[in-house]
Amino acid sequence: MSGEDAPAQQQNAVDQKQETKPAEEPKAEPPKTESAPAAAAEADATPAAATEKVPEEETFTYRALVLTGHGGYDKVKLQVKKGKPTLKAGEVLVRVKACGLNFADLMARQGLYDRMPSPPVTLGMECSGLVEAVGEEVTDRKVGDKVMVLNRFGLWQEVAVVPASHTFLIPEGMSFEEAAALPVNYITAYMMLFDFGNLRPNQSVLVHAAAGGVGIAATQLCKTVKDVTVFGTASASKHETISQGGVEHPIDYRTKDYVEEVRKISPKGMDIILDPLGGSDTHKAYNLLKPMGKLITYGTANMLAGQKKNLLAVAKNWYHQFSIHTLSLIQGNKSVCGFHLGYLDGEMELISQAMNTILDLYKEGKVKPHIDSTWHMEQVGDAMRKMQERNNIGKVILTTEPMPEEEKKEEPKKEDKKDDKKKDDKKKDDKKKDDGKKEEKKDDKKKEEPKKEEPKKEEEKKEEAKKEEK
Amino acid sequence: MSGEDAPAQQQNAVDQKQETKPAEEPKAEPPKTESAPAAAAEADATPAAATEKVPEEETFTYRALVLTGHGGYDKVKLQVKKGKPTLKAGEVLVRVKACGLNFADLMARQGLYDRMPSPPVTLGMECSGLVEAVGEEVTDRKVGDKVMVLNRFGLWQEVAVVPASHTFLIPEGMSFEEAAALPVNYITAYMMLFDFGNLRPNQSVLVHAAAGGVGIAATQLCKTVKDVTVFGTASASKHETISQGGVEHPIDYRTKDYVEEVRKISPKGMDIILDPLGGSDTHKAYNLLKPMGKLITYGTANMLAGQKKNLLAVAKNWYHQFSIHTLSLIQGNKSVCGFHLGYLDGEMELISQAMNTILDLYKEGKVKPHIDSTWHMEQVGDAMRKMQERNNIGKVILTTEPMPEEEKKEEPKKEDKKDDKKKDDKKKDDKKKDDGKKEEKKDDKKKEEPKKEEPKKEEEKKEEAKKEEK
Repeated sequence: MSGEDAPAQQQNAVDQKQETKPAEEPKAEPPKTESAPAAAAEADATPAAATEKVPEEETFTYRALVLTGHGGYDKVKLQVKKGKPTLKAGEVLVRVKACGLNFADLMARQGLYDRMPSPPVTLGMECSGLVEAVGEEVTDRKVGDKVMVLNRFGLWQEVAVVPASHTFLIPEGMSFEEAAALPVNYITAYMMLFDFGNLRPNQSVLVHAAAGGVGIAATQLCKTVKDVTVFGTASASKHETISQGGVEHPIDYRTKDYVEEVRKISPKGMDIILDPLGGSDTHKAYNLLKPMGKLITYGTANMLAGQKKNLLAVAKNWYHQFSIHTLSLIQGNKSVCGFHLGYLDGEMELISQAMNTILDLYKEGKVKPHIDSTWHMEQVGDAMRKMQERNNIGKVILTTEPMPEEEKKEEPKKEDKKDDKKKDDKKKDDKKKDDGKKEEKKDDKKKEEPKKEEPKKEEEKKEEAKKEEK
Repeated sequence: MSGEDAPAQQQNAVDQKQETKPAEEPKAEPPKTESAPAAAAEADATPAAATEKVPEEETFTYRALVLTGHGGYDKVKLQVKKGKPTLKAGEVLVRVKACGLNFADLMARQGLYDRMPSPPVTLGMECSGLVEAVGEEVTDRKVGDKVMVLNRFGLWQEVAVVPASHTFLIPEGMSFEEAAALPVNYITAYMMLFDFGNLRPNQSVLVHAAAGGVGIAATQLCKTVKDVTVFGTASASKHETISQGGVEHPIDYRTKDYVEEVRKISPKGMDIILDPLGGSDTHKAYNLLKPMGKLITYGTANMLAGQKKNLLAVAKNWYHQFSIHTLSLIQGNKSVCGFHLGYLDGEMELISQAMNTILDLYKEGKVKPHIDSTWHMEQVGDAMRKMQERNNIGKVILTTEPMPEEEKKEEPKKEDKKDDKKKDDKKKDDKKKDDGKKEEKKDDKKKEEPKKEEPKKEEEKKEEAKKEEK
């Protein structure tokens, strides 16, 4: 992989144009592309000419979610690409079944993530699917293997070509959705807690956004170590879920000062703090550390306000961004670490080690991805919105399953209902808890086929759950 | 212990007057004190009046090395104190045999260490000796126990009163000098490498000042982990010793650019860097880190130039002092940690855990303090000079053994010869290597009595070594 480091003066990840395409860009970028709005994309757009025995390389089409420019949710378009990608030595072609959404995708859409080439570019850092072809020199993957994939970008499409070293075999009993939910969140949580954090028995950990993908993964991983106490921030409606997941002290950051709440319970502070927020929250975290404590910052979610880049939020985050002097670290006996998997793509050996341990924990039943909801590719805007507005509990997933015709007809309504949707989100959150439980039951029953969940109207979901439980 | 944290604005540890005496100040500060220049101090200054059956509390005297003001080596005076200190619950009185010198003592002398009360104050963070009395509620120490002691200050005196929790039993076969050399250096190295550093097999570590007390301890501790590679900086004359100690790649920082040298051997950089230097060396260290690398800074030795506080060196160090922005940490996947045992005195539980592990490693023969030289209390100035001018290999020790009369007479000469001494240091270093080896042999033979080494004239040392080998 490229391994080039962003020079220090490029720390401002805003609107950087990265003109040179990095080496690891997935090959599934075809010569010809038909652009189309998401709602109008054709799943099986086989041209009539295909009957004239055109070679497969040319008739081959697939859908991809392409970032067409920086901005709001509508900048991500569902496009149909043509031409079968070719494989180089060491690569595999994956027929994608499900994809994970990550905060970096949201940042990228706004132009706030400098590990993404300039648009147009296919988004997506993780997916799961079936190996459909293997290139030369690939010895440890074969056609038909079920894999999860981690890549710098380019995985939100029906087929993706990636180095075989970026794929991991899906263990028995894990669904494609779970597999798409696992890599980024669990590797991030694992490396933060066990490499930088050096988590040990009896320690205390503050997990911000404890109901998010990384938050849930981190909580589960904390519980694999004896007598670790987890403090987690989340809005009140999510407390029941995170408590069940292992958070001993859920704190509603919207109505309470979380620093005070933590001090009340643990006056000396925390051994480890995971901070995805940035800005002034990083300062608070630093002051909440015990001696020998570790602050691990892994994002700037505070920078993300509204659909499009919010210059005020970005500036405010910058203004409050944490900067630390070594003498202060020495006198405090403290550690400040930064983590972002997107900048670690040159370290597949470290990542594989982490992944192997995580998969062992999965097999032992100690960790299990929590799926918030699954959306069709056409619904990527709503899926992004759910995550960006912090209405998810656990992972938001995209499925490449074709969307039923009757639902497509409803699509335009969705766009109109955006404002109503926001108001409804609170209600949905309250309902969500029950759905979450049902969803877990379903997960247990699932076999090997990708979940055929429909767009997440709450009533439909409940009906479905009943059907599946029969 | 006090536990109060120095507020951020006090980061400049220069000339701070700390008027309130902290709770953990050793009690052996008597009401009456006779000040005397080091050369003229009387070891057994029993006043004639003692024959009149004055109670022991009043006739009791002991010598102490007192910092009388900030400045050069002559600011540390050997004084005779009177009056037997009383014990509070939980405390023990230790008859001190040997004391360790640390960089913090040198910084304190110049007024650059804010964990020390204002002069006059007795220096010394570590010592070894015999328990001579125990206070109430002390259950795990008894009279006659051989102990090593760790305290914020006040241990360079013949008797010291400390909380029993600050003492550790000396294991079988360890000399008092070794015991005085162990606590600060080994706990520092251990906590940096295994708590912040999370050292694991196959990693690489850069140890600055690899021939210093912490450097030698760190190298030995690195060697307890499989396939760890140690890079160490030291002047060329010390390379043979540090290579024998386990440094695979000794680098002469005086004649070569150590960054280049490290890159030649390990182009990707280091997993862990221990930085006692501060200033611009911290910047270099940061840039030398691999992804997931940890920089652990634990001092500002670059601030120490010359006998007295050098404002230019202090200012330069401040100007170059490293400050890091979290976004840079995130993009680099790096960790920056600060460590100083002197600020960790509220965490005796953590310290005890580290110490117990270190003592186990000592018993297994995996770590062993390396003594550079042992000096009488009267020679504290020369002992400090040796360390400050980086002419030591391993630990510089003070012994409380009385200095023979004939040597005392030579004392004035020593003062005159200071300039010659400097010139001789280079030669001594070259000779040192041989002496070092002999000294190690002697250590092996040593039983329980403190080493009665005389002031370190090289010829005398060799003769002694021969005698002891008989």
